[in-house]
Amino acid sequence: MIKAERILPIIEWLPSYTKTNALNDLVAAAIVTIMLVPQSLAYAMLAGLPPHIGLYASILPLVAYALFGTSRTLAVGPVAVVSLMTAAAIGRVAAQGTSAYLTAAATLALLSGLVSLAMAASRLGFLSNFLSHSVISSFITASGILIAASQLKYLLGVTAGGDTLPTIIFALTNNVGGTNFYTLFIGVTALALLFWVRKNLKPHLVHAGVAARTADLIAKTGPLAVIALSILSVDLLTLQLKGVKIVGNIPAGFPPFAIPVVDLKLWLDLLPAAILINLVGFVESISVAQTLAAKRRQRIGANQELFALGAANIAAAVSAGFPVTGGFARSVVNFDAGAETPLAGVFTAIGILAATLFLTPMFRLLPQAVLAATIIVAVLSLVDLKALWRTFGYSKADFTVMAATIVFVLSVGVEAGIVVGVVLSIIFYLWRTSTPHIAIVGQVPGTEHFRNAERHKVITYPEILSIRVDESLYFANARFLEDTIYDSVATRPELKHVVLMCPAVNLIDASALESIEAIAHRLQEAGVGFHLSEVKGPVMDALKRSDFFEHFKGQIFLSQFDAVRTLATGLRVECEPAIEESLSSHLSTRNDRENVT
Amino acid sequence: MIKAERILPIIEWLPSYTKTNALNDLVAAAIVTIMLVPQSLAYAMLAGLPPHIGLYASILPLVAYALFGTSRTLAVGPVAVVSLMTAAAIGRVAAQGTSAYLTAAATLALLSGLVSLAMAASRLGFLSNFLSHSVISSFITASGILIAASQLKYLLGVTAGGDTLPTIIFALTNNVGGTNFYTLFIGVTALALLFWVRKNLKPHLVHAGVAARTADLIAKTGPLAVIALSILSVDLLTLQLKGVKIVGNIPAGFPPFAIPVVDLKLWLDLLPAAILINLVGFVESISVAQTLAAKRRQRIGANQELFALGAANIAAAVSAGFPVTGGFARSVVNFDAGAETPLAGVFTAIGILAATLFLTPMFRLLPQAVLAATIIVAVLSLVDLKALWRTFGYSKADFTVMAATIVFVLSVGVEAGIVVGVVLSIIFYLWRTSTPHIAIVGQVPGTEHFRNAERHKVITYPEILSIRVDESLYFANARFLEDTIYDSVATRPELKHVVLMCPAVNLIDASALESIEAIAHRLQEAGVGFHLSEVKGPVMDALKRSDFFEHFKGQIFLSQFDAVRTLATGLRVECEPAIEESLSSHLSTRNDRENVT
Repeated sequence: MIKAERILPIIEWLPSYTKTNALNDLVAAAIVTIMLVPQSLAYAMLAGLPPHIGLYASILPLVAYALFGTSRTLAVGPVAVVSLMTAAAIGRVAAQGTSAYLTAAATLALLSGLVSLAMAASRLGFLSNFLSHSVISSFITASGILIAASQLKYLLGVTAGGDTLPTIIFALTNNVGGTNFYTLFIGVTALALLFWVRKNLKPHLVHAGVAARTADLIAKTGPLAVIALSILSVDLLTLQLKGVKIVGNIPAGFPPFAIPVVDLKLWLDLLPAAILINLVGFVESISVAQTLAAKRRQRIGANQELFALGAANIAAAVSAGFPVTGGFARSVVNFDAGAETPLAGVFTAIGILAATLFLTPMFRLLPQAVLAATIIVAVLSLVDLKALWRTFGYSKADFTVMAATIVFVLSVGVEAGIVVGVVLSIIFYLWRTSTPHIAIVGQVPGTEHFRNAERHKVITYPEILSIRVDESLYFANARFLEDTIYDSVATRPELKHVVLMCPAVNLIDASALESIEAIAHRLQEAGVGFHLSEVKGPVMDALKRSDFFEHFKGQIFLSQFDAVRTLATGLRVECEPAIEESLSSHLSTRNDRENVT
Repeated sequence: MIKAERILPIIEWLPSYTKTNALNDLVAAAIVTIMLVPQSLAYAMLAGLPPHIGLYASILPLVAYALFGTSRTLAVGPVAVVSLMTAAAIGRVAAQGTSAYLTAAATLALLSGLVSLAMAASRLGFLSNFLSHSVISSFITASGILIAASQLKYLLGVTAGGDTLPTIIFALTNNVGGTNFYTLFIGVTALALLFWVRKNLKPHLVHAGVAARTADLIAKTGPLAVIALSILSVDLLTLQLKGVKIVGNIPAGFPPFAIPVVDLKLWLDLLPAAILINLVGFVESISVAQTLAAKRRQRIGANQELFALGAANIAAAVSAGFPVTGGFARSVVNFDAGAETPLAGVFTAIGILAATLFLTPMFRLLPQAVLAATIIVAVLSLVDLKALWRTFGYSKADFTVMAATIVFVLSVGVEAGIVVGVVLSIIFYLWRTSTPHIAIVGQVPGTEHFRNAERHKVITYPEILSIRVDESLYFANARFLEDTIYDSVATRPELKHVVLMCPAVNLIDASALESIEAIAHRLQEAGVGFHLSEVKGPVMDALKRSDFFEHFKGQIFLSQFDAVRTLATGLRVECEPAIEESLSSHLSTRNDRENVT
């Protein structure tokens, strides 16, 4: 039976909740709320939705996560990358500004939530492992660039389409003539202020004698100040009459609760996007949760997190929201502000609800350009092109995966980018393991160690070929192993024994087992013995389960040293002074010596 | 520069060709020709083509392979599985009996040949490695069953459709009432005779005093005798007038030479099938070639084989044939009959050409039921359902792949079966490597060895966690490693050091490197040291190429013993008498002891 604490972690910590906990959680919640209100409006706009939908998505999902999540400090809600993916997905099935678009957004959240729950139930969370770090980090970088580019039209105050980098640039170039200079001024000023707040406000405050942590928290409220300032400017100068586009009336009140209707065609259309959003959201969220949990030595349950994010998305769906996940920036703020339990999330939800009920009229005059500036500043911090160059030095395969992901996200779309990245990662991995490192090894003089004959001065014998394969043996490299061994045998007429050294073989699948049997059988027909050495325990157990030993005529040696000592009867095994550089010269030298002695 | 001998292996052996070689090759060619004539007619029928097309496909391709192939004894031509795949592929684009069907067959051979050449040029031959032994063997088993079932209608003398096992059985059940009993009698008799020849003729001949090898070769001519007998029966009893369907007039003469026209739509329609046929044909052919080459310690060049099979298929295409590859049965016959060089293939081609020119009138009265019986006997020898049970005991994953391949081939089609098999193999492999075996290890008392603490009595310390991961570290298991380590750290409050033991790590990709850096960073924040031990040379080289060591604060130990000896300062490292069964009891025991001393 599953314990209730596993499904509802809140049962574990709530009984020991103290006043100190409550105070800390309340402070953290206040700061996160201040940060989340403008972000929620902005990310809704990014998803092509009316701004208040962002607030709706920041209330109920937080409560759901607080109930089911295993992270004490993760803050969920709308995030940039998922909002971009939402816009791409629902933009294909409905037109922006229609009620169908709103329904599609809620449906996408519902599907994403159901996919999460299904994955949690079937323990398929491991699928997210195939979104490699390389793919995710380059995906986020490319999304950041794409999002920033998509916001430029608001900064210019023009109408322009495009959902890929080339089409966005093309549309902007065509429409740049219609730039509204009030808008541009207010947008660029906001952008500069926001960058300054992010980079320089904290050092200035610290310099002025404010404590570092307080300075940090004050700096987090900076964006709200910029927003207040811009609203004030519009109000005083009546800029909305001079072509500056404002957010406009935001309906105040509780989010409408409704279960999205089951529309099978819409569900099928949105399902692939829901799966991708779910995977990306999960990977982003669990990375943040794990980073923060590790700092306090707390545990994160991956499967339970999947369940909690599923619940959060379903909560978003029934309260007219759109897909949500754990966000990096807000979770770090929550953590730094001293949040101790998920109740901080519940308090934040209450804060956002209060804003939804009472503060929405204040945002009527907020210029869209300022929201765009908020988004640009947030997403540009996600762009990490240096990772590309770091990876270039380490692994060309990983670099190729990253570059392809970025190029496809920018030029085709977010979903194409992820799919290309994942498929390429898998192909490169399979390719690498299908041509494993296979070394011909020899004995290091004076030791029982065997090393690569091409790298070290070692003792070998023309009658015995010691081959070490540095990879598990499975279907994709079984033939490669066969080729290598047959080739080695064909070029060594004196050969009497082949010993396959298996210390790095963690698995032999059925296809590779067939290959090993074929190698043994064919070498036997050619008068060459075939043996194994240093076979690992679990691999040996598996071999014993099969009928391998009914046919296998060779020997299994505990160590390569045993193998050579046993097989080289009549040959001297002690280390010898005359050792050559390369294997080939070795063999010939040994031959000459054999002939002489 | 590439040597001419590599492209044209014939240059290597032709100059030293002797009269003895020629005699042996001629004898082998005669026997293979006798075997190949009825097979060629039968496999053409299987592919839905007129019988003489099978002869055409057994002339020029043999010459092309003799020029370019690296196997001395491989015999190419139409084979059962590829013929079935051909029928499935061209049946989708043209109707049987039309000239479009003939064009499609030749075009498929051309495309398959071009795909082969392209793969040889781009060294993509390794792609065939992803057709695992499990997939290929179960694919061949299922194809054998499907082919045998598809021939039953000829045995009954009825017209019935169907291209999957259920539809074939359904069609047969509906049409069984129209059975022609002359046909059934002649078919079943042929079937019984062919089975008897295959199983019992050789032992009888040996018993009668014939030398084993001669008996073997005589047994190979058995099918031709059965065919001659059936033709004679039809002629004497004029069975063709009693409803027994005969092969009918076969046009005599040279194959018409023509380059298939470039029809882009047809090419695109056939390309996926051509790629699959090429891969399956290549795997089948190279397995045979390697088996035979190993017996004589000869070498097979995988890439050159791809090139040679490409040339053979293009030769089939320009001589109005259909896709060909190296066949198992005929190659073994060729080898056993004493073929020494590819000239045996050229002689066989001349033999088949002679049959095409002069013998075709003899086959006019050959009953289709007897050809069907030939096919059934040939393919049932390919069916190996026992492999399924053998694999079941060894690996459930491989068993699932095989069962799925068989079910899909039989119920959906040959292409679906292969695709499902390959995709499942890859998923299972990735799944297995994404959740690698990770052991907490301890020191075996009195040695420097470290073993799994759950399997052996070992010494561990509550302050030091030694973890061995038995798999290369890559994106799909990077998170699993992180989870495992964080979990271990969270449950061990006394922990001061984690040592990751890497003797089985053959690769660390960029994503796994990020994970290791994250682990190191997070453990450091939690006050725990993170170290590596027994890192392999190539992995270390790669780490040195990255900026890993600029951030890494831990130590790299040559051996786990070094690591524990260095880190456990103040702890006794020598073996101790009190060693517990499991790690957990271990830790508590150690704690108690620490508290006491």
